Amino acid sequence: MPRITFLPANVTVEVPEGETVIRAAMKAGLHINASCGGAGVCGKCRVFLEEGEAEGEALPEGGYKACTLIPKGHVVIRIPVESEVDRRALLRPIKKVATSWLETRGPAQVVLSPPAKKIFLSLEPPSLQDNTPDLMRLETALKASLKKEKLEVDWRLLRRLPYVLREKGFQVTATIWEKEIPRLLNVEAGDTSRRHFALVVDVGTTTVCAELVDLASGETLGETSDYNPQISYGEDVISRIEFARKGDGLHLLHARIIECISRLTKELCDKQGVDPQEIVHYSIAGNTVMSHFLLELEPRFLRESPYVPVASRFPEVPAQEVGLPGGEQTVLTLAPCVASYVGGDIVAGVVAAGLASEEPLTLFIDIGTNGEIVVGNKDFLACAACSAGPAFEGGGIKHGMRATTGAIEAVRVDPNTLEPMILTIGNKKPKGICGSGIISLLANLFIEGIIDQSGKYRRDLDHPRLREGRDGWEYVLVWSKDSATGEDIVFTEADIDNLIRAKGAMFSGYQTLLESVGLEVSMLERVILAGNFGSFLDLEQAIIIGLLPDLPRERFFFIGNSSLLGARMAALSLKAREEMERVAGMMTHFELSAHPGYMDYYVSALFLPHTNIDLFPTVKTLLGKA
Amino acid sequence: MPRITFLPANVTVEVPEGETVIRAAMKAGLHINASCGGAGVCGKCRVFLEEGEAEGEALPEGGYKACTLIPKGHVVIRIPVESEVDRRALLRPIKKVATSWLETRGPAQVVLSPPAKKIFLSLEPPSLQDNTPDLMRLETALKASLKKEKLEVDWRLLRRLPYVLREKGFQVTATIWEKEIPRLLNVEAGDTSRRHFALVVDVGTTTVCAELVDLASGETLGETSDYNPQISYGEDVISRIEFARKGDGLHLLHARIIECISRLTKELCDKQGVDPQEIVHYSIAGNTVMSHFLLELEPRFLRESPYVPVASRFPEVPAQEVGLPGGEQTVLTLAPCVASYVGGDIVAGVVAAGLASEEPLTLFIDIGTNGEIVVGNKDFLACAACSAGPAFEGGGIKHGMRATTGAIEAVRVDPNTLEPMILTIGNKKPKGICGSGIISLLANLFIEGIIDQSGKYRRDLDHPRLREGRDGWEYVLVWSKDSATGEDIVFTEADIDNLIRAKGAMFSGYQTLLESVGLEVSMLERVILAGNFGSFLDLEQAIIIGLLPDLPRERFFFIGNSSLLGARMAALSLKAREEMERVAGMMTHFELSAHPGYMDYYVSALFLPHTNIDLFPTVKTLLGKA
Repeated sequence: MPRITFLPANVTVEVPEGETVIRAAMKAGLHINASCGGAGVCGKCRVFLEEGEAEGEALPEGGYKACTLIPKGHVVIRIPVESEVDRRALLRPIKKVATSWLETRGPAQVVLSPPAKKIFLSLEPPSLQDNTPDLMRLETALKASLKKEKLEVDWRLLRRLPYVLREKGFQVTATIWEKEIPRLLNVEAGDTSRRHFALVVDVGTTTVCAELVDLASGETLGETSDYNPQISYGEDVISRIEFARKGDGLHLLHARIIECISRLTKELCDKQGVDPQEIVHYSIAGNTVMSHFLLELEPRFLRESPYVPVASRFPEVPAQEVGLPGGEQTVLTLAPCVASYVGGDIVAGVVAAGLASEEPLTLFIDIGTNGEIVVGNKDFLACAACSAGPAFEGGGIKHGMRATTGAIEAVRVDPNTLEPMILTIGNKKPKGICGSGIISLLANLFIEGIIDQSGKYRRDLDHPRLREGRDGWEYVLVWSKDSATGEDIVFTEADIDNLIRAKGAMFSGYQTLLESVGLEVSMLERVILAGNFGSFLDLEQAIIIGLLPDLPRERFFFIGNSSLLGARMAALSLKAREEMERVAGMMTHFELSAHPGYMDYYVSALFLPHTNIDLFPTVKTLLGKA
Repeated sequence: MPRITFLPANVTVEVPEGETVIRAAMKAGLHINASCGGAGVCGKCRVFLEEGEAEGEALPEGGYKACTLIPKGHVVIRIPVESEVDRRALLRPIKKVATSWLETRGPAQVVLSPPAKKIFLSLEPPSLQDNTPDLMRLETALKASLKKEKLEVDWRLLRRLPYVLREKGFQVTATIWEKEIPRLLNVEAGDTSRRHFALVVDVGTTTVCAELVDLASGETLGETSDYNPQISYGEDVISRIEFARKGDGLHLLHARIIECISRLTKELCDKQGVDPQEIVHYSIAGNTVMSHFLLELEPRFLRESPYVPVASRFPEVPAQEVGLPGGEQTVLTLAPCVASYVGGDIVAGVVAAGLASEEPLTLFIDIGTNGEIVVGNKDFLACAACSAGPAFEGGGIKHGMRATTGAIEAVRVDPNTLEPMILTIGNKKPKGICGSGIISLLANLFIEGIIDQSGKYRRDLDHPRLREGRDGWEYVLVWSKDSATGEDIVFTEADIDNLIRAKGAMFSGYQTLLESVGLEVSMLERVILAGNFGSFLDLEQAIIIGLLPDLPRERFFFIGNSSLLGARMAALSLKAREEMERVAGMMTHFELSAHPGYMDYYVSALFLPHTNIDLFPTVKTLLGKA
């Protein structure tokens, strides 16, 4: 692995092969001016190669563009004065993203035993001595194989049964849906037990992720994702519920998500040479609102007090009946939900993390379009939805955007020059700021003293980048000439206010939920961050702004898309599917706003990092207040 | 009840109100010449009213037409010499139709507890304190009411559930399908528990009978019937199986029977002000071939050795999926079959008779297009199909016809004059002879010595009514001038031969089946005659020709359409439905032709009444051979 020693700070870091110097510096907490997000056009990120070999674009006046420079072996890089690191930043520990839950622990053990089972049977062909009816012949063999006394049969099977049995001399493969009374879903001629597939889907408000899983081997054959096309009808669940109330709205939302999943399914199947007819099981997890849309269930009462879902545990659905590709036999299951705003994605996630079967007191957080939190262990589970709003996904932020190409994903601001160092996704000219960039920027502005604890810009700094704009005070992160949009990209006090309210809602959520079960934040033994957002979250920065509690860093883990993971487990293992039901039943839902202490907690959290700085000892130290 | 004393025979009989003298005479075993079937046109049936009052058409030469004369109170009727009773007929005991099983015993006890149950629930509306999802709220109440831990739900219900619950303030009526894990079929707003209907159908090869049953009261609200429209594609099951093999044949047969049941359903519903959507259950019984057609299952292997049905126990079928009128929730059940030619009609009939739960050794006979026989009691049941052919339904008989208007249903032939006395259904001019007429005629010709034991006409009788026609020797039953067709209606030796083979197949069937279980005919404690045919069968005549065993007459019962009765019981009582499954499982099917003794039994039965006359002691006496 290449290594870089940065001068004058004399900080040495290891970097992945092919990593640019500017990204290495950002990770190391060192500042290099950069305005174009790594697009290689602003030329501000000049560094000097003092020792070793590296490849990159040389600048005419000497040195290299750090955003193009890729070290080979060990190099020594000097950051010139104009780009020099701020001393105060050195006080900060090297930032780290939380540990990967899956790399350290793996998903909860799954023994391959799918709810949809294929059984190859070599039946005795009928004779005058034994002219048992076709169905009974099959049933008798199946019951013996399953060690069950009863079996349910989809009657439509009977129409093709005699042909299928006789096609390969009464050698057949039966597909069984395992439950108390197993259900015979399908019969195929010959031995098809190796062709056995499930489609696993996480239906997020913003993103739909799908995997094609081989149920015979347990392997994931392919994965893909796309934006949820319902976005065109509303960014968040509330606006979509409103849309659903108008005319054909609900049907349209339903049709769009079914189209989307169908498309992803066909894409995955095509790539793997699988006929969608061979899919036996769609295992889907989504929040309560997405689950309602998927089945075209009236979402209106989710939004009106007293917030009642049509269903939280969903019956099995023949996939064809909702319009998904597959055979007559294909079963769709949805992860069970808990309440209107704590859905199957969270239940699937908790099962994927396995926290409901372990001792340590764990906080499970999913900061997506909504913020959902779960606290508990093997003995209890409490959950709540935080009305955090979409600020962390760029919603309600003037130049906020989703985490796509051109989004500013990391920022540092030099406290002396107020010049920013920015990195964009895909190293393109910046278009806006995504969630991780927003947190990065907010944390930086705060820790460098450019904004105060209440989120206001220092009025005494006279600098062109700090100005009073149409929406009040703002910081110019990118000048129009460097931006992809041709406009200044700014970060306003209104944006900061939104972010503080969002993180305040989350933090007071933890506090309230913990208090509801007689506990407090400091007692947490583990914090698991779910969702893509959690994976890209800079732990230190998130603690600095008070979004995450200031606990020892080794207690934090990110688990990625645990909803998809749980859905996959439910396809691979009947036990996992049953565990979902158990976990959903075990989860006590708390309506945070109904808790008498909630408003106090919330108001106290509307500061950076918090009104009570003693809750954030490491931030207190960083601010020099310890 | 009016009474008639017939002179000179001096026989007195009670007759139902409105009964004609000629019909009373026929029942009493007295002969009155009659050629027009009771249509009042031939004028041959002259009788004299000696005492009492009666209404009818007087003849110009004195006396009345017996076919129009209806007695009031007690009358004395003299039959003139030309119509006089034959002495030998007086030797015969007064004929009787078998006792009605239902009138003497009633159907097996049915406690009203339908598999499709309606439950009215007054749910607590949701509140912030209890915002349980709609489905869970309903399920919890239902589980408590049913005392069950699990419940299955049809997912499509969820789409309307929130509206239905809120329509009448969470007062709803749930429709449940009772089984191991009950299934929630439907939810309606308010209390609809009094609107709860089933459609009960017997799908016969020839006739389809349907009843609309009120599941709330257990009452039958209406009944209707029609010919099975599949008749156009073949009279019997074999020719229909052949038809099904060609092109779209199977689908056509399926579509026609579905159309027929749909039509009968609508007719019954219309008459009773019931919306077909309110039908919860179609309880249908039919033979194995009809059951296959109903579900559009491949019938081909029923006909090809080794005679394998697709299924004998049929899964529950959503009625909509086969195209029957009803709601999403409507369930269709089919009575279980035993083998290719012993079907659900027989199983339903055995359950209706209740013989499988009683001690007496019983023979259950259904002489329809096929002849099916069951023998057994509470300890065992053996069954078989007899290849009797359709002779008893008029098939393969030159002037045979179904039992409709104009069919000769009863015949007597004067042994001296060879003049017949005939009665037709509906008292219309005769068109042909139906089953009961055929048996009546055959028995009469035999007992009067006009044919011999091998079914040949006496060649020594010189009479215009006995002649050698195109098809060999024949008896002219109706001259062309008296027939509705303008042709002579004849009864040929070939017809007689067919009938002897048919009754021989039945009788040797009883013998073989009984021998298979180590018993013999004389041990039978009861004989139950099922089907419409059984109801119209003249017991004495059936014994005379050797179709039924010569047992004490009080052991015989007719039960009518026991298939329909069983289907009704299965709609009214879950226990009856379960009993069908038990009975079907208990029935051992014997392939008669595979039995080593069968051919001997069969050949011996090809005489009137039998080669071994000692098996028919009362016939032996009648013939003066005792």
